[in-house]
Amino acid sequence: MPKPIAIIAGAGPGTGSAVARRFAKAYPVVLLARSQTSLDPIVHDITQSGGSAVGVPTDVTSSSSMSSTMEQIKTKFGPDVSIAAAIYNVASKFVRKPFLEQSPEEFLGSLEPSIKGAFNFSQATLPLMLNEDRGQYPPTLIFTGATAALKGSSGLSGFAMSKFGIRALSQSLAREFGPKGVHVSHAIIDGIIDTEKTKGYSQEIPDSKIDPKWIAESYWFLHTQPRTSFTHEIDLRPYSEKW
Amino acid sequence: MPKPIAIIAGAGPGTGSAVARRFAKAYPVVLLARSQTSLDPIVHDITQSGGSAVGVPTDVTSSSSMSSTMEQIKTKFGPDVSIAAAIYNVASKFVRKPFLEQSPEEFLGSLEPSIKGAFNFSQATLPLMLNEDRGQYPPTLIFTGATAALKGSSGLSGFAMSKFGIRALSQSLAREFGPKGVHVSHAIIDGIIDTEKTKGYSQEIPDSKIDPKWIAESYWFLHTQPRTSFTHEIDLRPYSEKW
Amino acid sequence: MPKPIAIIAGAGPGTGSAVARRFAKAYPVVLLARSQTSLDPIVHDITQSGGSAVGVPTDVTSSSSMSSTMEQIKTKFGPDVSIAAAIYNVASKFVRKPFLEQSPEEFLGSLEPSIKGAFNFSQATLPLMLNEDRGQYPPTLIFTGATAALKGSSGLSGFAMSKFGIRALSQSLAREFGPKGVHVSHAIIDGIIDTEKTKGYSQEIPDSKIDPKWIAESYWFLHTQPRTSFTHEIDLRPYSEKW
Amino acid sequence: MPKPIAIIAGAGPGTGSAVARRFAKAYPVVLLARSQTSLDPIVHDITQSGGSAVGVPTDVTSSSSMSSTMEQIKTKFGPDVSIAAAIYNVASKFVRKPFLEQSPEEFLGSLEPSIKGAFNFSQATLPLMLNEDRGQYPPTLIFTGATAALKGSSGLSGFAMSKFGIRALSQSLAREFGPKGVHVSHAIIDGIIDTEKTKGYSQEIPDSKIDPKWIAESYWFLHTQPRTSFTHEIDLRPYSEKW
Repeated sequence: MPKPIAIIAGAGPGTGSAVARRFAKAYPVVLLARSQTSLDPIVHDITQSGGSAVGVPTDVTSSSSMSSTMEQIKTKFGPDVSIAAAIYNVASKFVRKPFLEQSPEEFLGSLEPSIKGAFNFSQATLPLMLNEDRGQYPPTLIFTGATAALKGSSGLSGFAMSKFGIRALSQSLAREFGPKGVHVSHAIIDGIIDTEKTKGYSQEIPDSKIDPKWIAESYWFLHTQPRTSFTHEIDLRPYSEKW
Repeated sequence: MPKPIAIIAGAGPGTGSAVARRFAKAYPVVLLARSQTSLDPIVHDITQSGGSAVGVPTDVTSSSSMSSTMEQIKTKFGPDVSIAAAIYNVASKFVRKPFLEQSPEEFLGSLEPSIKGAFNFSQATLPLMLNEDRGQYPPTLIFTGATAALKGSSGLSGFAMSKFGIRALSQSLAREFGPKGVHVSHAIIDGIIDTEKTKGYSQEIPDSKIDPKWIAESYWFLHTQPRTSFTHEIDLRPYSEKW
Repeated sequence: MPKPIAIIAGAGPGTGSAVARRFAKAYPVVLLARSQTSLDPIVHDITQSGGSAVGVPTDVTSSSSMSSTMEQIKTKFGPDVSIAAAIYNVASKFVRKPFLEQSPEEFLGSLEPSIKGAFNFSQATLPLMLNEDRGQYPPTLIFTGATAALKGSSGLSGFAMSKFGIRALSQSLAREFGPKGVHVSHAIIDGIIDTEKTKGYSQEIPDSKIDPKWIAESYWFLHTQPRTSFTHEIDLRPYSEKW
Repeated sequence: MPKPIAIIAGAGPGTGSAVARRFAKAYPVVLLARSQTSLDPIVHDITQSGGSAVGVPTDVTSSSSMSSTMEQIKTKFGPDVSIAAAIYNVASKFVRKPFLEQSPEEFLGSLEPSIKGAFNFSQATLPLMLNEDRGQYPPTLIFTGATAALKGSSGLSGFAMSKFGIRALSQSLAREFGPKGVHVSHAIIDGIIDTEKTKGYSQEIPDSKIDPKWIAESYWFLHTQPRTSFTHEIDLRPYSEKW
């Protein structure tokens, strides 16, 4: 029996790589991102720490790209590989712009990661979560969401549609695949994530940015919950956040 | 100054035609649906009753079709025509099917009316709602929604994404265009609508289907609210509905 | 058959009196408030306009006071009087204060209007809404709520408990009495209400306060909905409100 | 510096005792319940396992009883004792009964644990969570909630008011005490909890009852979150639950 794997889409610096590092403590991890160059340092880092990681450049919004990635995974891990955890962490495009100034391409294009991407990723990974041999913990599919999943905002209609949509998908899949033993969960990340890029933000208040390691710990905790006790929605925000 | 018009997308039998009849008591109405044949009887009926109606076959999911419709409207009502009320009532495709059995075409195609269509319609109509001369009531943009806007369900992930998405758009536009005096509202229709098609359903309980005339009355009521007192979300369901 | 009445608790200046005036166009109205002096001008005003109104000083948080009021109503309108509309508009006490500085008396006392009062009023009025002879519109019980029904806030824990509680009661009664033909509805009033007291507020933005007459019109609209098409929750806010 | 303690109200068999056992691995625990006899076996069990536990019979709905309990705690653990974790797990009375058949005593009495009790417990424990010396994890106040916190039901208006109220309190305190470094969280427990009492329920579906140990693990996980990454609401339900 091959060991089940974890697969993380949107494995760039920040949340994706922190999640990859956390799940690599237990599983071989497959990391998806558009470019090989953004995958390399994380794969290297995990491998150095004694974990097993492989990066597969993938455009999750393309069903053929996603299929080809799954083929590579089966070639590498065996045709009967199973998935212990699948994390959909691909960023929704954040376009803050007056509604009437957005072109159809801009608006509809911004929805693709959350709609086509989330659909392709879910369809590709769920079949490998239905194996009889389930490993120690129930197979887990987690979607990274945001406050915009609960509330629309001026100038952010596309972003809100993306995030509401991800939540709708997560809830529907939880209700469909929960009875089959798959744990589907949605995480509302509310606040600035503490990354290299956001270093300069919110410096005046200590600890006021979300620690990606703790997003990862929270996802890991969700993964360990037995099927008697599934959490389907969790929020994460700094103590100093207004909400 | 030309009289402002009302425009209804999804003007088939049922809710759309009831809304058209109601708004035709006050405004010339423009009715959009895919086929001329579904528009003709409603246009005829409104005209017979002394109202003014025109049907324009339109594929709202196509931005060029929507543009061409707006051109026809300007040709007919004048280039400075304004919109008093725009109702987006295009049905989201209701596909109840196991998630893993849906093809990408089926799943993503089912989202088009709610995403492309709602986007195209909103972008085309909102500019004509920002005129200084506002008529008696604030210009109003109403989206027909459903319970699936609030809750995902097994086998209905695409429908839930559609309806959550419409709600996200409605909330975002309400927050963006409210301060400009435009009333944007979302109606959660929860229950079977009483139409020719549903005649056989739920016959054992009297009055257990939603009356399309009362959806229309409710939309009209929303339209009459002054800008001091906007309602942004309303639910409608029969007294006998479980919810 | 005696004509059904409307009964409004919390009939002070502002929303209560506007609602009383609106329903007095169709029904004899009974107005409840703690003091006769706050009732007198409204009763006088309605009577002057050709309506029928009676004010009964009542402490709705006292079940004996509420019972005695119902006795007076039956004495005046006959033992088989029925209620067409009952509006619970008693203000929740708005105490904004650090949680640890609130005494039990202060905190728990502030909840009484929303808990004891709403309970007493609902128990007293619902039996008179179940008569076979229902009048033109379904009997209607409306609770005035607030944004605090949806979201807690710092320093406002008691107010939030009050408003969440009212919403819980409204939803539960809607589900229990809806199938019996009674329309129970909850209105989320979000913004400053335009009254004598708030004259000085928000003057720089025109129309930025909610018009009590339109709260009244909205309640009246809810009342007219047939049982095929009940609305259970409605929000009302000025176009300029952040939400 | 004395070691901080954990305090659990509603420490009967089931969730309360599982939570007590979990937190006893890290802290001396103080257990509150109405009767000494329901506390004794849990205290004994924890002590046997090498933990430190004390049971204090307390009526949390009485502010004097709660005060006296806090005095006993200070006598035992020192006047400068601090609280690492406070868990409010007192059951709301579950009265399913037609609304019009409930006496005021019954209805209002059923609300006391969730209103007076939660107020007294929060006011008594929060001051001991504001100490500078915070221990390893942020001090944590957790409220056990239920699905009825989100949705009213026929015949359950009092239960819904209780649970909506607890959620309102939790949200408000989270917003008030979060910025002071206290983690306030609300857990929606949706399903039958697997206890001695519920042994006979839902036996036909394996693992279809929530494991109290995993409620405890989830509460412990919440407690360990750093202030960069607080979760304010979590749901827990079996994979087989309809929701």
